[in-house]
Amino acid sequence: MNPRKFSQPYRVTNGKKFRLADFDPADIDGFKPGKNFAARLAAAAHELRKWQDKLYAQNRWALLLIFQAMDAAGKDGTIKHVMSGVNPQGCQVVSFKSPSAEELNHDFMWRCMKNLPERGRIGIFNRSYYEETLIVRVHPAILAGERLPAPLVTKNIWRERFEDIAACERYWSRNGVKILKFFLNLSPKEQKKRFLERLNNPKKHWKFSASDLSERQYWRQYMTAYEDMIRHTASKSAPWYVVPADDKQYAHLVVGAAVLDALQELNPAYPDVSKEQLQRIEMAKKELG
Amino acid sequence: MNPRKFSQPYRVTNGKKFRLADFDPADIDGFKPGKNFAARLAAAAHELRKWQDKLYAQNRWALLLIFQAMDAAGKDGTIKHVMSGVNPQGCQVVSFKSPSAEELNHDFMWRCMKNLPERGRIGIFNRSYYEETLIVRVHPAILAGERLPAPLVTKNIWRERFEDIAACERYWSRNGVKILKFFLNLSPKEQKKRFLERLNNPKKHWKFSASDLSERQYWRQYMTAYEDMIRHTASKSAPWYVVPADDKQYAHLVVGAAVLDALQELNPAYPDVSKEQLQRIEMAKKELG
Repeated sequence: MNPRKFSQPYRVTNGKKFRLADFDPADIDGFKPGKNFAARLAAAAHELRKWQDKLYAQNRWALLLIFQAMDAAGKDGTIKHVMSGVNPQGCQVVSFKSPSAEELNHDFMWRCMKNLPERGRIGIFNRSYYEETLIVRVHPAILAGERLPAPLVTKNIWRERFEDIAACERYWSRNGVKILKFFLNLSPKEQKKRFLERLNNPKKHWKFSASDLSERQYWRQYMTAYEDMIRHTASKSAPWYVVPADDKQYAHLVVGAAVLDALQELNPAYPDVSKEQLQRIEMAKKELG
Repeated sequence: MNPRKFSQPYRVTNGKKFRLADFDPADIDGFKPGKNFAARLAAAAHELRKWQDKLYAQNRWALLLIFQAMDAAGKDGTIKHVMSGVNPQGCQVVSFKSPSAEELNHDFMWRCMKNLPERGRIGIFNRSYYEETLIVRVHPAILAGERLPAPLVTKNIWRERFEDIAACERYWSRNGVKILKFFLNLSPKEQKKRFLERLNNPKKHWKFSASDLSERQYWRQYMTAYEDMIRHTASKSAPWYVVPADDKQYAHLVVGAAVLDALQELNPAYPDVSKEQLQRIEMAKKELG
Protein backbone atom coordinates (compact mmCIF):
# COMPACT_ATOMS: atom_id res chain seq x y z
CA MET A 1 0.00 0.00 0.00
CA ASN A 2 1.06 3.60 -0.52
CA PRO A 3 0.89 5.05 3.00
CA ARG A 4 0.60 8.63 1.85
CA LYS A 5 -2.29 7.95 -0.48
CA PHE A 6 -4.02 5.98 2.23
CA SER A 7 -3.68 8.52 5.06
CA GLN A 8 -3.84 11.77 3.08
CA PRO A 9 -7.69 12.03 2.97
CA TYR A 10 -7.77 12.33 6.77
CA ARG A 11 -4.89 14.75 7.17
CA VAL A 12 -5.56 18.40 8.11
CA THR A 13 -2.64 20.80 7.77
CA ASN A 14 -4.61 24.03 7.63
CA GLY A 15 -7.53 24.35 10.00
CA LYS A 16 -9.08 27.51 8.61
CA LYS A 17 -11.83 25.80 6.66
CA PHE A 18 -12.02 22.66 8.76
CA ARG A 19 -15.52 21.34 9.52
CA LEU A 20 -15.91 18.16 11.53
CA ALA A 21 -19.16 17.43 9.67
CA ASP A 22 -17.11 16.80 6.53
CA PHE A 23 -15.57 13.71 8.15
CA ASP A 24 -17.66 10.55 8.50
CA PRO A 25 -16.78 8.37 11.53
CA ALA A 26 -18.03 5.32 9.60
CA ASP A 27 -15.95 5.93 6.47
CA ILE A 28 -14.04 2.83 5.35
CA ASP A 29 -13.48 3.89 1.75
CA GLY A 30 -14.47 0.50 0.30
CA PHE A 31 -12.10 -1.34 2.64
CA LYS A 32 -12.94 -5.01 3.29
CA PRO A 33 -11.74 -6.47 6.58
CA GLY A 34 -10.66 -10.08 7.05
CA LYS A 35 -7.46 -11.74 5.83
CA ASN A 36 -6.69 -8.72 3.76
CA PHE A 37 -6.46 -6.67 6.93
CA ALA A 38 -4.08 -8.91 8.86
CA ALA A 39 -1.71 -9.06 5.90
CA ARG A 40 -1.74 -5.31 5.40
CA LEU A 41 -1.17 -4.54 9.06
CA ALA A 42 1.66 -7.08 9.25
CA ALA A 43 3.31 -5.50 6.21
CA ALA A 44 2.97 -2.06 7.77
CA ALA A 45 4.41 -3.28 11.08
CA HIS A 46 7.40 -4.77 9.28
CA GLU A 47 8.04 -1.50 7.46
CA LEU A 48 7.64 0.44 10.69
CA ARG A 49 10.27 -1.66 12.45
CA LYS A 50 12.73 -1.08 9.63
CA TRP A 51 12.33 2.68 9.78
CA GLN A 52 12.37 2.80 13.55
CA ASP A 53 15.73 1.04 13.56
CA LYS A 54 17.19 3.72 11.28
CA LEU A 55 15.56 6.54 13.26
CA TYR A 56 17.20 5.18 16.42
CA ALA A 57 20.61 4.68 14.81
CA GLN A 58 20.65 8.15 13.26
CA ASN A 59 19.62 9.74 16.56
CA ARG A 60 18.56 13.12 15.13
CA TRP A 61 14.77 13.18 14.80
CA ALA A 62 12.15 12.24 17.37
CA LEU A 63 8.64 11.22 16.37
CA LEU A 64 5.75 12.29 18.60
CA LEU A 65 2.31 10.70 18.14
CA ILE A 66 -0.56 12.33 20.03
CA PHE A 67 -3.88 10.51 20.49
CA GLN A 68 -7.08 12.28 21.47
CA ALA A 69 -10.60 10.89 21.38
CA MET A 70 -13.85 10.34 23.19
CA ASP A 71 -14.01 7.32 25.51
CA ALA A 72 -14.08 3.92 23.81
CA ALA A 73 -12.90 5.40 20.51
CA GLY A 74 -9.98 2.98 20.55
CA LYS A 75 -6.89 4.91 21.67
CA ASP A 76 -5.45 2.01 23.68
CA GLY A 77 -6.30 -0.56 21.01
CA THR A 78 -4.81 1.54 18.23
CA ILE A 79 -1.56 2.04 20.10
CA LYS A 80 -1.45 -1.69 20.88
CA HIS A 81 -2.15 -2.91 17.34
CA VAL A 82 -0.16 -0.35 15.37
CA MET A 83 2.89 -0.10 17.59
CA SER A 84 3.31 -3.60 19.02
CA GLY A 85 5.92 -4.49 16.41
CA VAL A 86 8.39 -1.74 17.26
CA ASN A 87 11.38 -2.10 19.56
CA PRO A 88 10.32 -0.80 22.99
CA GLN A 89 13.86 0.45 23.59
CA GLY A 90 13.12 3.22 21.10
CA CYS A 91 9.48 3.81 21.97
CA GLN A 92 7.71 5.18 25.04
CA VAL A 93 4.00 5.55 25.73
CA VAL A 94 2.89 8.16 28.28
CA SER A 95 -0.74 8.22 29.42
CA PHE A 96 -1.96 11.49 30.88
CA LYS A 97 -4.73 11.05 33.44
CA SER A 98 -6.06 13.66 35.88
CA PRO A 99 -3.15 15.95 36.74
CA SER A 100 -1.40 15.48 40.09
CA ALA A 101 -1.00 18.24 42.66
CA GLU A 102 2.58 18.75 41.46
CA GLU A 103 1.44 18.96 37.84
CA LEU A 104 -1.30 21.47 38.68
CA ASN A 105 1.40 23.59 40.28
CA HIS A 106 2.90 24.12 36.83
CA ASP A 107 1.78 25.41 33.44
CA PHE A 108 -0.63 23.00 31.76
CA MET A 109 1.88 21.73 29.17
CA TRP A 110 4.64 21.08 31.72
CA ARG A 111 3.95 17.39 32.35
CA CYS A 112 3.93 16.71 28.61
CA MET A 113 7.05 18.76 27.85
CA LYS A 114 9.01 16.78 30.43
CA ASN A 115 8.03 13.61 28.64
CA LEU A 116 8.87 14.58 25.08
CA PRO A 117 10.69 11.76 23.31
CA GLU A 118 14.46 11.96 22.97
CA ARG A 119 16.13 12.14 19.59
CA GLY A 120 15.92 8.80 17.80
CA ARG A 121 12.81 7.74 19.72
CA ILE A 122 9.11 7.42 19.07
CA GLY A 123 7.02 9.01 21.82
CA ILE A 124 3.31 8.33 22.16
CA PHE A 125 1.01 10.57 24.17
CA ASN A 126 -2.22 8.80 25.16
CA ARG A 127 -4.10 12.05 25.76
CA SER A 128 -1.99 15.21 26.11
CA TYR A 129 -2.04 18.96 26.73
CA TYR A 130 -5.01 19.03 24.34
CA GLU A 131 -7.17 17.83 27.24
CA GLU A 132 -6.94 21.45 28.39
CA THR A 133 -8.91 22.52 25.32
CA LEU A 134 -11.39 19.63 25.61
CA ILE A 135 -12.49 18.38 29.04
CA VAL A 136 -11.31 21.54 30.81
CA ARG A 137 -13.14 23.71 28.29
CA VAL A 138 -16.34 21.67 28.53
CA HIS A 139 -16.18 21.68 32.36
CA PRO A 140 -15.16 25.17 33.54
CA ALA A 141 -15.04 23.92 37.15
CA ILE A 142 -11.80 22.11 36.25
CA LEU A 143 -10.22 25.36 35.07
CA ALA A 144 -11.19 26.97 38.37
CA GLY A 145 -9.26 24.19 40.14
CA GLU A 146 -6.04 24.90 38.25
CA ARG A 147 -4.95 27.63 40.66
CA LEU A 148 -4.28 30.13 37.88
CA PRO A 149 -3.93 33.69 39.18
CA ALA A 150 -7.34 35.31 38.72
CA PRO A 151 -6.19 38.18 36.44
CA LEU A 152 -4.97 35.60 33.90
CA VAL A 153 -8.34 33.89 33.45
CA THR A 154 -9.76 36.19 30.78
CA LYS A 155 -12.28 35.69 28.00
CA ASN A 156 -9.30 35.24 25.65
CA ILE A 157 -7.97 32.23 27.48
CA TRP A 158 -8.85 29.61 24.83
CA ARG A 159 -7.55 31.72 21.98
CA GLU A 160 -4.34 32.18 24.00
CA ARG A 161 -4.06 28.48 24.77
CA PHE A 162 -4.38 27.59 21.08
CA GLU A 163 -1.77 30.20 20.21
CA ASP A 164 0.59 28.87 22.90
CA ILE A 165 0.15 25.25 21.85
CA ALA A 166 0.77 26.10 18.20
CA ALA A 167 3.89 28.10 19.13
CA CYS A 168 5.29 25.27 21.24
CA GLU A 169 4.65 22.68 18.54
CA ARG A 170 6.40 24.93 16.02
CA TYR A 171 9.33 25.22 18.45
CA TRP A 172 9.58 21.46 18.97
CA SER A 173 9.36 20.77 15.25
CA ARG A 174 12.18 23.27 14.65
CA ASN A 175 14.25 21.26 17.10
CA GLY A 176 13.79 17.86 15.54
CA VAL A 177 10.45 16.59 16.85
CA LYS A 178 8.15 15.41 14.08
CA ILE A 179 4.59 15.70 15.44
CA LEU A 180 1.52 13.75 14.27
CA LYS A 181 -1.83 14.22 16.01
CA PHE A 182 -4.66 11.73 15.78
CA PHE A 183 -8.28 12.42 16.57
CA LEU A 184 -10.09 9.07 16.55
CA ASN A 185 -13.45 10.19 15.25
CA LEU A 186 -16.16 7.99 16.78
CA SER A 187 -19.94 8.29 16.36
CA PRO A 188 -22.11 8.43 19.50
CA LYS A 189 -23.98 5.39 18.19
CA GLU A 190 -20.82 3.29 17.99
CA GLN A 191 -19.72 4.51 21.42
CA LYS A 192 -23.00 3.29 22.89
CA LYS A 193 -22.46 -0.12 21.31
CA ARG A 194 -18.94 -0.37 22.75
CA PHE A 195 -20.05 0.69 26.22
CA LEU A 196 -22.67 -2.06 26.15
CA GLU A 197 -20.01 -4.57 25.14
CA ARG A 198 -17.88 -3.49 28.10
CA LEU A 199 -20.82 -3.79 30.47
CA ASN A 200 -21.60 -7.28 29.18
CA ASN A 201 -18.01 -8.54 29.22
CA PRO A 202 -16.47 -9.17 32.69
CA LYS A 203 -12.94 -8.97 31.22
CA LYS A 204 -13.68 -5.41 30.13
CA HIS A 205 -15.39 -4.24 33.29
CA TRP A 206 -12.18 -2.63 34.55
CA LYS A 207 -12.33 -0.27 31.58
CA PHE A 208 -15.71 1.12 32.53
CA SER A 209 -16.33 4.05 34.83
CA ALA A 210 -19.61 5.81 35.57
CA SER A 211 -18.18 9.13 34.40
CA ASP A 212 -17.77 7.68 30.88
CA LEU A 213 -21.52 7.49 30.68
CA SER A 214 -22.21 10.92 32.16
CA GLU A 215 -19.84 12.55 29.66
CA ARG A 216 -22.10 11.37 26.81
CA GLN A 217 -24.55 14.16 27.59
CA TYR A 218 -21.82 16.69 26.66
CA TRP A 219 -21.26 15.12 23.24
CA ARG A 220 -22.23 18.25 21.30
CA GLN A 221 -20.01 20.50 23.43
CA TYR A 222 -17.12 18.08 22.99
CA MET A 223 -17.51 18.00 19.21
CA THR A 224 -17.53 21.81 19.13
CA ALA A 225 -14.36 21.78 21.24
CA TYR A 226 -12.65 19.20 19.00
CA GLU A 227 -13.56 21.17 15.89
CA ASP A 228 -12.25 24.41 17.36
CA MET A 229 -9.08 22.68 18.53
CA ILE A 230 -8.35 21.31 15.06
CA ARG A 231 -9.21 24.62 13.39
CA HIS A 232 -6.64 26.42 15.55
CA THR A 233 -3.82 23.91 15.84
CA ALA A 234 -3.61 22.02 12.54
CA SER A 235 -0.42 22.99 10.74
CA LYS A 236 2.07 21.61 8.26
CA SER A 237 4.57 20.95 11.01
CA ALA A 238 1.96 19.37 13.31
CA PRO A 239 -0.98 18.04 11.26
CA TRP A 240 -4.14 16.51 12.69
CA TYR A 241 -5.44 13.24 11.30
CA VAL A 242 -9.21 12.93 11.67
CA VAL A 243 -9.36 9.14 11.68
CA PRO A 244 -12.72 7.44 11.07
CA ALA A 245 -12.94 5.23 14.15
CA ASP A 246 -16.25 3.36 13.95
CA ASP A 247 -14.40 0.50 12.27
CA LYS A 248 -11.45 -0.41 14.49
CA GLN A 249 -9.42 -2.22 11.86
CA TYR A 250 -9.75 0.59 9.37
CA ALA A 251 -8.67 3.09 12.04
CA HIS A 252 -5.56 1.01 12.76
CA LEU A 253 -4.65 0.96 9.08
CA VAL A 254 -5.06 4.72 8.70
CA VAL A 255 -2.91 5.45 11.76
CA GLY A 256 -0.26 2.93 10.70
CA ALA A 257 -0.16 4.48 7.24
CA ALA A 258 0.22 8.00 8.63
CA VAL A 259 3.13 6.94 10.86
CA LEU A 260 4.82 5.17 7.97
CA ASP A 261 4.33 8.17 5.72
CA ALA A 262 5.98 10.44 8.29
CA LEU A 263 8.94 8.10 8.71
CA GLN A 264 9.42 7.78 4.97
CA GLU A 265 9.36 11.55 4.68
CA LEU A 266 11.98 11.94 7.42
CA ASN A 267 13.94 9.25 5.62
CA PRO A 268 16.40 8.50 8.45
CA ALA A 269 19.58 6.62 7.50
CA TYR A 270 22.24 4.69 9.36
CA PRO A 271 25.12 7.04 10.16
CA ASP A 272 28.05 7.01 7.77
CA VAL A 273 31.05 5.16 9.11
CA SER A 274 34.37 6.96 8.72
CA LYS A 275 37.46 5.41 7.12
CA GLU A 276 39.16 5.34 10.51
CA GLN A 277 36.19 3.54 12.02
CA LEU A 278 36.21 0.99 9.17
CA GLN A 279 39.92 0.39 9.82
CA ARG A 280 39.22 -0.12 13.52
CA ILE A 281 36.47 -2.59 12.58
CA GLU A 282 38.88 -4.55 10.39
CA MET A 283 41.50 -4.61 13.15
CA ALA A 284 38.95 -5.78 15.68
CA LYS A 285 37.89 -8.59 13.34
CA LYS A 286 41.53 -9.75 13.09
CA GLU A 287 42.08 -9.57 16.82
CA LEU A 288 39.01 -11.66 17.56
CA GLY A 289 39.29 -14.06 14.63
CA MET B 1 13.69 53.22 48.94
CA ASN B 2 11.15 53.05 46.14
CA PRO B 3 12.09 49.83 44.35
CA ARG B 4 10.40 50.79 41.10
CA LYS B 5 12.15 54.14 40.85
CA PHE B 6 15.46 52.49 41.65
CA SER B 7 15.25 49.63 39.14
CA GLN B 8 13.28 51.30 36.35
CA PRO B 9 16.26 52.96 34.61
CA TYR B 10 17.73 49.55 33.85
CA ARG B 11 14.55 47.85 32.73
CA VAL B 12 13.98 47.06 29.03
CA THR B 13 10.46 46.04 28.02
CA ASN B 14 10.73 46.81 24.31
CA GLY B 15 13.91 45.80 22.58
CA LYS B 16 13.39 47.52 19.25
CA LYS B 17 15.58 50.52 19.95
CA PHE B 18 17.84 48.88 22.51
CA ARG B 19 21.54 49.71 22.28
CA LEU B 20 23.95 48.21 24.76
CA ALA B 21 26.19 51.26 24.36
CA ASP B 22 23.51 53.34 26.13
CA PHE B 23 24.15 51.41 29.35
CA ASP B 24 27.29 52.13 31.36
CA PRO B 25 28.64 49.13 33.34
CA ALA B 26 30.17 51.58 35.84
CA ASP B 27 26.95 53.54 36.49
CA ILE B 28 26.20 53.96 40.20
CA ASP B 29 23.87 56.93 39.90
CA GLY B 30 25.46 58.85 42.75
CA PHE B 31 25.24 55.86 45.09
CA LYS B 32 27.72 55.82 47.99
CA PRO B 33 28.62 52.42 49.42
CA GLY B 34 29.39 51.79 53.08
CA LYS B 35 26.95 51.69 56.01
CA ASN B 36 24.25 53.06 53.81
CA PHE B 37 24.49 49.94 51.66
CA ALA B 38 24.20 47.33 54.40
CA ALA B 39 21.14 49.05 55.86
CA ARG B 40 19.42 49.31 52.48
CA LEU B 41 20.12 45.71 51.55
CA ALA B 42 18.91 44.52 54.95
CA ALA B 43 15.71 46.51 54.54
CA ALA B 44 15.20 45.04 51.08
CA ALA B 45 15.83 41.50 52.37
CA HIS B 46 13.27 42.02 55.11
CA GLU B 47 10.67 43.20 52.60
CA LEU B 48 11.50 40.31 50.29
CA ARG B 49 10.89 37.76 53.02
CA LYS B 50 7.51 39.29 53.81
CA TRP B 51 6.36 39.11 50.20
CA GLN B 52 7.77 35.63 49.65
CA ASP B 53 5.74 34.35 52.58
CA LYS B 54 2.55 35.68 50.99
CA LEU B 55 3.51 34.38 47.55
CA TYR B 56 3.98 30.92 49.06
CA ALA B 57 0.74 31.01 51.06
CA GLN B 58 -1.31 32.21 48.10
CA ASN B 59 0.18 29.53 45.84
CA ARG B 60 -0.90 31.08 42.52
CA TRP B 61 2.05 32.93 41.00
CA ALA B 62 5.60 31.72 40.51
CA LEU B 63 8.52 34.13 40.18
CA LEU B 64 11.34 33.23 37.79
CA LEU B 65 14.63 35.14 37.93
CA ILE B 66 17.07 34.51 35.10
CA PHE B 67 20.72 35.56 35.39
CA GLN B 68 23.03 35.88 32.40
CA ALA B 69 26.44 37.50 32.30
CA MET B 70 30.07 37.22 31.31
CA ASP B 71 32.35 35.35 33.72
CA ALA B 72 33.13 37.12 36.99
CA ALA B 73 30.24 39.55 36.51
CA GLY B 74 28.85 38.44 39.86
CA LYS B 75 25.96 36.06 39.19
CA ASP B 76 26.78 33.80 42.15
CA GLY B 77 27.45 36.72 44.48
CA THR B 78 24.26 38.54 43.49
CA ILE B 79 22.12 35.44 44.09
CA LYS B 80 23.87 34.92 47.42
CA HIS B 81 23.52 38.48 48.68
CA VAL B 82 20.08 39.33 47.38
CA MET B 83 18.33 36.03 48.09
CA SER B 84 20.00 34.76 51.27
CA GLY B 85 17.19 36.10 53.43
CA VAL B 86 14.38 34.15 51.77
CA ASN B 87 12.99 30.86 53.01
CA PRO B 88 14.70 28.11 51.01
CA GLN B 89 11.50 26.04 51.18
CA GLY B 90 9.98 28.44 48.66
CA CYS B 91 13.08 29.11 46.59
CA GLN B 92 15.19 26.97 44.27
CA VAL B 93 18.36 27.84 42.38
CA VAL B 94 19.20 25.83 39.28
CA SER B 95 22.61 26.29 37.64
CA PHE B 96 22.86 25.28 34.01
CA LYS B 97 26.33 24.09 33.00
CA SER B 98 27.33 22.28 29.80
CA PRO B 99 24.36 20.15 28.75
CA SER B 100 24.45 16.42 29.46
CA ALA B 101 23.99 13.75 26.79
CA GLU B 102 20.36 13.34 27.89
CA GLU B 103 19.79 17.11 27.69
CA LEU B 104 21.33 17.31 24.21
CA ASN B 105 18.87 14.63 23.14
CA HIS B 106 16.04 17.14 23.67
CA ASP B 107 15.13 20.61 22.47
CA PHE B 108 17.41 23.27 23.92
CA MET B 109 14.86 24.67 26.39
CA TRP B 110 13.87 21.25 27.76
CA ARG B 111 16.18 21.18 30.76
CA CYS B 112 15.00 24.62 31.83
CA MET B 113 11.29 23.93 31.29
CA LYS B 114 11.51 20.88 33.53
CA ASN B 115 12.91 23.09 36.26
CA LEU B 116 10.41 25.94 36.15
CA PRO B 117 9.36 26.96 39.66
CA GLU B 118 6.03 25.70 41.00
CA ARG B 119 3.23 28.10 41.91
CA GLY B 120 4.09 29.98 45.08
CA ARG B 121 7.84 29.55 44.57
CA ILE B 122 10.76 31.69 43.49
CA GLY B 123 12.91 29.96 40.90
CA ILE B 124 16.37 31.22 40.02
CA PHE B 125 18.16 30.20 36.82
CA ASN B 126 21.91 30.72 37.05
CA ARG B 127 22.39 30.76 33.25
CA SER B 128 19.48 29.41 31.18
CA TYR B 129 18.24 28.65 27.66
CA TYR B 130 19.70 32.04 26.72
CA GLU B 131 23.11 30.34 26.60
CA GLU B 132 21.91 29.00 23.25
CA THR B 133 21.88 32.56 21.88
CA LEU B 134 25.21 33.46 23.51
CA ILE B 135 27.99 30.87 23.79
CA VAL B 136 26.42 28.59 21.15
CA ARG B 137 26.05 31.51 18.77
CA VAL B 138 29.60 32.72 19.36
CA HIS B 139 30.98 29.18 18.94
CA PRO B 140 29.20 27.48 16.00
CA ALA B 141 31.03 24.22 16.76
CA ILE B 142 28.75 23.80 19.79
CA LEU B 143 25.66 24.06 17.59
CA ALA B 144 27.10 21.36 15.34
CA GLY B 145 27.37 19.11 18.40
CA GLU B 146 23.67 19.46 19.26
CA ARG B 147 22.61 16.66 16.90
CA LEU B 148 19.93 18.78 15.24
CA PRO B 149 18.69 17.24 11.97
CA ALA B 150 20.66 18.98 9.21
CA PRO B 151 17.62 20.42 7.34
CA LEU B 152 16.69 22.37 10.47
CA VAL B 153 19.98 24.27 10.76
CA THR B 154 19.17 27.13 8.42
CA LYS B 155 20.33 30.72 8.23
CA ASN B 156 17.15 31.69 10.08
CA ILE B 157 18.01 29.64 13.13
CA TRP B 158 18.75 32.57 15.47
CA ARG B 159 15.66 34.50 14.42
CA GLU B 160 13.65 31.31 15.03
CA ARG B 161 15.23 30.71 18.41
CA PHE B 162 14.41 34.25 19.54
CA GLU B 163 10.85 33.82 18.30
CA ASP B 164 10.50 30.49 20.12
CA ILE B 165 11.95 31.83 23.37
CA ALA B 166 9.64 34.85 23.29
CA ALA B 167 6.62 32.61 22.59
CA CYS B 168 7.46 30.27 25.46
CA GLU B 169 7.98 33.14 27.89
CA ARG B 170 4.62 34.59 26.85
CA TYR B 171 3.06 31.18 27.44
CA TRP B 172 4.59 30.81 30.91
CA SER B 173 3.58 34.32 31.88
CA ARG B 174 0.00 33.57 30.79
CA ASN B 175 0.09 30.59 33.15
CA GLY B 176 1.25 32.40 36.24
CA VAL B 177 5.04 32.64 35.94
CA LYS B 178 6.32 36.18 36.43
CA ILE B 179 9.66 36.39 34.61
CA LEU B 180 12.51 38.82 35.30
CA LYS B 181 15.75 38.58 33.36
CA PHE B 182 19.01 40.09 34.54
CA PHE B 183 22.02 40.82 32.39
CA LEU B 184 24.85 41.77 34.73
CA ASN B 185 26.65 44.26 32.55
CA LEU B 186 30.39 44.12 33.31
CA SER B 187 33.20 46.03 31.61
CA PRO B 188 36.16 44.06 30.25
CA LYS B 189 38.43 46.20 32.42
CA GLU B 190 36.61 45.22 35.61
CA GLN B 191 36.58 41.57 34.52
CA LYS B 192 40.36 41.66 34.15
CA LYS B 193 40.68 43.09 37.67
CA ARG B 194 38.44 40.34 39.10
CA PHE B 195 40.30 37.57 37.28
CA LEU B 196 43.57 38.87 38.76
CA GLU B 197 41.99 38.84 42.23
CA ARG B 198 40.98 35.22 41.71
CA LEU B 199 44.47 34.29 40.56
CA ASN B 200 46.03 35.98 43.58
CA ASN B 201 43.61 34.55 46.16
CA PRO B 202 44.02 30.81 46.90
CA LYS B 203 40.45 30.69 48.30
CA LYS B 204 39.15 31.77 44.90
CA HIS B 205 41.35 29.52 42.79
CA TRP B 206 38.53 26.96 42.43
CA LYS B 207 36.51 29.57 40.57
CA PHE B 208 39.10 30.02 37.85
CA SER B 209 39.32 28.01 34.66
CA ALA B 210 41.57 28.58 31.68
CA SER B 211 38.57 28.86 29.36
CA ASP B 212 37.44 31.98 31.25
CA LEU B 213 40.52 33.72 29.96
CA SER B 214 40.26 32.43 26.40
CA GLU B 215 36.65 33.66 26.14
CA ARG B 216 37.88 37.24 26.67
CA GLN B 217 39.08 37.36 23.06
CA TYR B 218 35.44 36.96 21.94
CA TRP B 219 34.25 39.94 24.02
CA ARG B 220 33.02 41.92 21.02
CA GLN B 221 31.10 38.94 19.59
CA TYR B 222 29.54 38.28 22.99
CA MET B 223 28.38 41.87 23.37
CA THR B 224 26.82 41.75 19.90
CA ALA B 225 25.05 38.52 20.90
CA TYR B 226 23.82 40.02 24.21
CA GLU B 227 22.54 43.10 22.43
CA ASP B 228 20.71 41.05 19.81
CA MET B 229 19.26 38.77 22.50
CA ILE B 230 17.84 41.71 24.45
CA ARG B 231 16.54 43.39 21.29
CA HIS B 232 14.55 40.28 20.39
CA THR B 233 13.37 39.01 23.77
CA ALA B 234 12.66 42.03 25.96
CA SER B 235 8.93 42.30 26.55
CA LYS B 236 6.47 43.61 29.09
CA SER B 237 5.77 40.12 30.36
CA ALA B 238 9.47 39.19 30.50
CA PRO B 239 11.62 42.34 30.77
CA TRP B 240 15.41 42.42 30.75
CA TYR B 241 17.26 44.41 33.40
CA VAL B 242 20.62 45.64 32.15
CA VAL B 243 22.29 45.90 35.54
CA PRO B 244 25.51 47.93 35.84
CA ALA B 245 27.81 45.36 37.41
CA ASP B 246 31.22 47.02 37.83
CA ASP B 247 30.19 47.95 41.38
CA LYS B 248 29.04 44.78 43.09
CA GLN B 249 27.05 46.43 45.85
CA TYR B 250 25.18 48.67 43.47
CA ALA B 251 24.34 45.64 41.29
CA HIS B 252 22.91 43.84 44.32
CA LEU B 253 20.72 46.80 45.17
CA VAL B 254 19.37 47.11 41.64
CA VAL B 255 18.54 43.40 41.43
CA GLY B 256 16.97 43.43 44.89
CA ALA B 257 14.88 46.46 43.96
CA ALA B 258 13.68 44.83 40.73
CA VAL B 259 12.62 41.66 42.56
CA LEU B 260 10.80 43.69 45.20
CA ASP B 261 9.08 45.77 42.55
CA ALA B 262 7.82 42.63 40.82
CA LEU B 263 6.50 41.16 44.05
CA GLN B 264 4.76 44.38 45.01
CA GLU B 265 3.15 44.45 41.58
CA LEU B 266 1.92 40.86 41.93
CA ASN B 267 0.71 41.84 45.36
CA PRO B 268 0.11 38.30 46.67
CA ALA B 269 -2.09 37.97 49.76
CA TYR B 270 -2.75 35.31 52.35
CA PRO B 271 -5.76 33.25 51.24
CA ASP B 272 -9.11 34.22 52.70
CA VAL B 273 -10.28 31.84 55.40
CA SER B 274 -13.89 30.70 55.10
CA LYS B 275 -16.44 30.98 57.92
CA GLU B 276 -16.44 27.18 58.21
CA GLN B 277 -12.67 27.13 58.51
CA LEU B 278 -12.81 29.87 61.19
CA GLN B 279 -15.33 27.77 63.10
CA ARG B 280 -13.07 24.74 62.84
CA ILE B 281 -10.17 26.86 64.11
CA GLU B 282 -12.23 27.97 67.11
CA MET B 283 -13.27 24.39 67.83
CA ALA B 284 -9.67 23.19 67.60
CA LYS B 285 -8.61 25.91 70.05
CA LYS B 286 -11.22 24.74 72.54
CA GLU B 287 -10.26 21.11 72.11
CA LEU B 288 -6.57 21.80 72.74
CA GLY B 289 -7.01 24.49 75.42
